[in-house]
Amino acid sequence: MDVRVSFAELSKTYDELPMFPVFDIAHYILMILQLRNDAGVGAEALAESNALACWLCGMLSCFGGKIVANFLLGQPVIAAFNSTKHIITATIVWYLMFYSPWDVCYRIISTKLGKLLVYPIKEFSRAKKVASGVAQAAVVYPQGFAVMIIIGAVKGTGSLFIRNVERLLRGVWTPTSNEIMSPSATFKISVTCAFLLTVERMGYIPFPPEQIMFGLTMFIVPYKVSVILLKIGDPYVHVERALRPMLFKKRKRTDGEGQSGKKEATKDQKKKNNDKDSKKKAE
Amino acid sequence: MDVRVSFAELSKTYDELPMFPVFDIAHYILMILQLRNDAGVGAEALAESNALACWLCGMLSCFGGKIVANFLLGQPVIAAFNSTKHIITATIVWYLMFYSPWDVCYRIISTKLGKLLVYPIKEFSRAKKVASGVAQAAVVYPQGFAVMIIIGAVKGTGSLFIRNVERLLRGVWTPTSNEIMSPSATFKISVTCAFLLTVERMGYIPFPPEQIMFGLTMFIVPYKVSVILLKIGDPYVHVERALRPMLFKKRKRTDGEGQSGKKEATKDQKKKNNDKDSKKKAE
Amino acid sequence: MDVRVSFAELSKTYDELPMFPVFDIAHYILMILQLRNDAGVGAEALAESNALACWLCGMLSCFGGKIVANFLLGQPVIAAFNSTKHIITATIVWYLMFYSPWDVCYRIISTKLGKLLVYPIKEFSRAKKVASGVAQAAVVYPQGFAVMIIIGAVKGTGSLFIRNVERLLRGVWTPTSNEIMSPSATFKISVTCAFLLTVERMGYIPFPPEQIMFGLTMFIVPYKVSVILLKIGDPYVHVERALRPMLFKKRKRTDGEGQSGKKEATKDQKKKNNDKDSKKKAE
Repeated sequence: MDVRVSFAELSKTYDELPMFPVFDIAHYILMILQLRNDAGVGAEALAESNALACWLCGMLSCFGGKIVANFLLGQPVIAAFNSTKHIITATIVWYLMFYSPWDVCYRIISTKLGKLLVYPIKEFSRAKKVASGVAQAAVVYPQGFAVMIIIGAVKGTGSLFIRNVERLLRGVWTPTSNEIMSPSATFKISVTCAFLLTVERMGYIPFPPEQIMFGLTMFIVPYKVSVILLKIGDPYVHVERALRPMLFKKRKRTDGEGQSGKKEATKDQKKKNNDKDSKKKAE
Repeated sequence: MDVRVSFAELSKTYDELPMFPVFDIAHYILMILQLRNDAGVGAEALAESNALACWLCGMLSCFGGKIVANFLLGQPVIAAFNSTKHIITATIVWYLMFYSPWDVCYRIISTKLGKLLVYPIKEFSRAKKVASGVAQAAVVYPQGFAVMIIIGAVKGTGSLFIRNVERLLRGVWTPTSNEIMSPSATFKISVTCAFLLTVERMGYIPFPPEQIMFGLTMFIVPYKVSVILLKIGDPYVHVERALRPMLFKKRKRTDGEGQSGKKEATKDQKKKNNDKDSKKKAE
Repeated sequence: MDVRVSFAELSKTYDELPMFPVFDIAHYILMILQLRNDAGVGAEALAESNALACWLCGMLSCFGGKIVANFLLGQPVIAAFNSTKHIITATIVWYLMFYSPWDVCYRIISTKLGKLLVYPIKEFSRAKKVASGVAQAAVVYPQGFAVMIIIGAVKGTGSLFIRNVERLLRGVWTPTSNEIMSPSATFKISVTCAFLLTVERMGYIPFPPEQIMFGLTMFIVPYKVSVILLKIGDPYVHVERALRPMLFKKRKRTDGEGQSGKKEATKDQKKKNNDKDSKKKAE
């Protein structure tokens, strides 16, 4: 059995792995972790004073991808709350992450070791989530190239898009920041994956979808591990830096030559800031 | 005929009472009243300078429960505007409440006597609204325990959930307050009702739904009357105060013992504030 | 052939004119122009630093009417992204308007001559857009008088209603201004058109719909040209000034007579400001 066959077989096994319970639980753990980190000092106060709002924020985080995807496709946004099995599992995870004695669960997951246990499992299943989004969109819009990419990316990046709504529920409103304004590496990876799967569905890639998914996963998991261990940055930054001047180049105005030189400088500085941002966000 | 039979018969009569016109008009009157009180001094200015925005805010308030429930269930949010009969009735109520000569309608309803006339009628029909929400959800998700409770509560508390959107329409944005952050007694009553009706639907309560609804109504109406007359507070506060330390207890951190003592104090103070709030909100 | 017959024939021709490509491209050009003008100095920075957000804002502007109408009718909001033909055309227009060398496209369209070329084409097709909205609503709600007017107006005024969402995507949040708070002449024209078409559909107007549409268009196009050339204001202001005291008159309170006199003065001043606003907005 050569390498090629075993890769095909592994891909098939990967495709057939069920999401529940292992991958879903890893997903819920990370989403609640991110919720607590996002709420910061307010998280503890919220959990004590208003368990209902805290629970709703948790559920929005856990089922964010499904909710946004359903909203865009005109399907019931509440569908995520239909599966009693999933909602109870997510509720248990939420409860343990917020109310465990001495906060033990949260503190274990927050360690580097805890992250190294949970993040790879989550990243391992990301490509499957993207694929489910592309498939969901393809049912409604078999020819909708853009729709498939958007829904795939939304399903893959889950809670990132519902973050602003979820914050609003806690009484925090941050209009100047959203996922589209400063996309994370995770989002860019999901877009790549959704793009490849959509192109494959259109018949332009001679590999079966599960091999694309598995091949990408082979990159995502080690990447995420090195983000946690080595604090490496967003790998897309280099591609963007090369493409941006070609595609979205500075428009030269005759009446603003001097000013434009200054702006160029600010731009470079901004790029540096972006690199720093990408390092933070990638983690 | 013993008490039991007559209760069953009354419940049946209650269940069969039509919502239109009496209960719907009482609902519209209260919603427009709340809108005017919420807008405060701005209400008069809005009514004069921009009748269109004022009317839309009024309709959002009147049909809030239906709009939010439909949104969550993936049904057309504009469906509320389909029934010409309801929209014309609501428009007449809106017009009378905002533009009556010498503001006579608004001033009559605002008196204690006016409230004592309209609030009980509204509260009398709340359980029916909750039941219609649970039934609407059950059609789409026969097994969706959480969905039925959510839609039932949303239908029962109507405009509370659309308040932030409605304010935005008037150019007022209050991100730090919403119904989930500081739930009113009305909302908690609706959740209780939705919960009981859902459990009954699952087959765990040996009473027919109309008896549950009527039994609850027998509590809600006198409660609301005493809120208006005696300014009593949220009855759930006591239950919450008992349950909170058991279920959502303070997590003890070894590194923050001293700090935690201080927080406990702030928490107690917060609770007192909550009690005050509840008094205000219950009205 | 008398005038009447030729008008009927012209109306028929008007009704049968396809939207794509000429009218759609004129629409896209204007929407991107308005987006750049709305973003002001931030537009250039956005286009360079975050092409993805810029593109999404552009698409939201171009397909705003469709997105909002679909949302209200419970149809998929992403449907606008399904037609690859339209999305590619809009993307090309967006690219040219933002990234053309020396910004040549934007600067040509921004001139008075450029506006005189594009605006009339756009206004020429507005009545057709309103009609498509009324028809879309009539399919779902054949008796929904209010629904047809709302959806017709939304389809006709397109991006105006999605502006706040689109701004949010760019990190700009303007809760105190929206289309409902300060409706533009364009919006009022669309409402008029939607109202007439709905009344016709109900059987109360003895003209076929295409003649109503064409008749209105004969007014809108010259009006828009005179707005660009002569800076004339909102023609509805005069009607409103006549109707407002009759329908939405000042409520007299016995306890605020003196105060009310003062308010009257402020009101008059406000009206003057409104007139100024209308001049600005009409353009």
